[in-house]
Amino acid sequence: MNHKVSQRFEVLISGAGGQGIILAGVIIAEAGIAQKLQVVQTASYGPESRGGASRSEVILASSPIDYPAVTEPDFVAAFTQEAADKHAGRARSGGVVLLDSTWVEEMPPGLHGRVYSIPLTEEARKRFDKPIVANVIALGFFSEHNPLIGPDALLKALISRVPSHYREMNEHAFSLGRELAQVDVTV
Amino acid sequence: MNHKVSQRFEVLISGAGGQGIILAGVIIAEAGIAQKLQVVQTASYGPESRGGASRSEVILASSPIDYPAVTEPDFVAAFTQEAADKHAGRARSGGVVLLDSTWVEEMPPGLHGRVYSIPLTEEARKRFDKPIVANVIALGFFSEHNPLIGPDALLKALISRVPSHYREMNEHAFSLGRELAQVDVTV
Repeated sequence: MNHKVSQRFEVLISGAGGQGIILAGVIIAEAGIAQKLQVVQTASYGPESRGGASRSEVILASSPIDYPAVTEPDFVAAFTQEAADKHAGRARSGGVVLLDSTWVEEMPPGLHGRVYSIPLTEEARKRFDKPIVANVIALGFFSEHNPLIGPDALLKALISRVPSHYREMNEHAFSLGRELAQVDVTV
Repeated sequence: MNHKVSQRFEVLISGAGGQGIILAGVIIAEAGIAQKLQVVQTASYGPESRGGASRSEVILASSPIDYPAVTEPDFVAAFTQEAADKHAGRARSGGVVLLDSTWVEEMPPGLHGRVYSIPLTEEARKRFDKPIVANVIALGFFSEHNPLIGPDALLKALISRVPSHYREMNEHAFSLGRELAQVDVTV
């Protein structure tokens, strides 16, 4: 007999405008669609004049999504201190929290997930001379920390979204994220 | 004295995969961002294998958005009978409901908005030989039926999203939508 268990996985990526937060959510959503999952993807933008808080939410599910809002995210990434303070504590128990320690210098309140504090932006700047690919490193990391979209599917969705002359750099950044996910850097 | 009233406008566009539902929501969101509004944009996808119900929600607001889900949409567009049956009745009293009568042949239940029944897909096919631009006609229509994003801003966001060789067709489709919004076709 084939007992299929319905799975639902909630993702919350938060930061500021210009950090590729929205695009990261779109890429996860597109990878999910390609995997024939049910997907709800939400992008929230504050006006740039206010500092531009930016947030992506993605719900991935193997059966129809009744409640389309993220409540207890299984995976939270935060790219600014403000985003970390606001969202990192929302991760469910046992969920994964990824903090870009280039910008998140103080541990946010209320943490109860597995916390990885990694200088994503600094790695992106140092290795690729492109701070913006911090989001791609995060995608590689994410691909190792969710049960529904594997690295190959996520990389494919990524590649279809980036200009071809940046393809190699994005592949490297994605691989770096996967490697960082293997290392035990839990704080 | 300058009394600014906080405004919030909820949009729900629903149909099937391949009808440009998601793109229409993204274009409204991008126009809203360019207008320095607060924007939450949500895209919901069902797997294609299940018929691919597709839904875009956009919340536009002049001040921070506390509750990021669409509850009583001010504007509902439905491009399939199924979408109309499910969502058209959710429009708030006094809201606008746009039905693509090419596909919505029976009036959906529970209507209490101002209802426009227009053969968007048939118009798109007849005039441009491209059924897909039904979504652009809808955007032109929308630009005349919301208080926060005018036609110029919406057209600009549209043009930045379409291939340049389709620019003229999209401009025409958008204009057609604006014209259809002027005609009293309320059912």
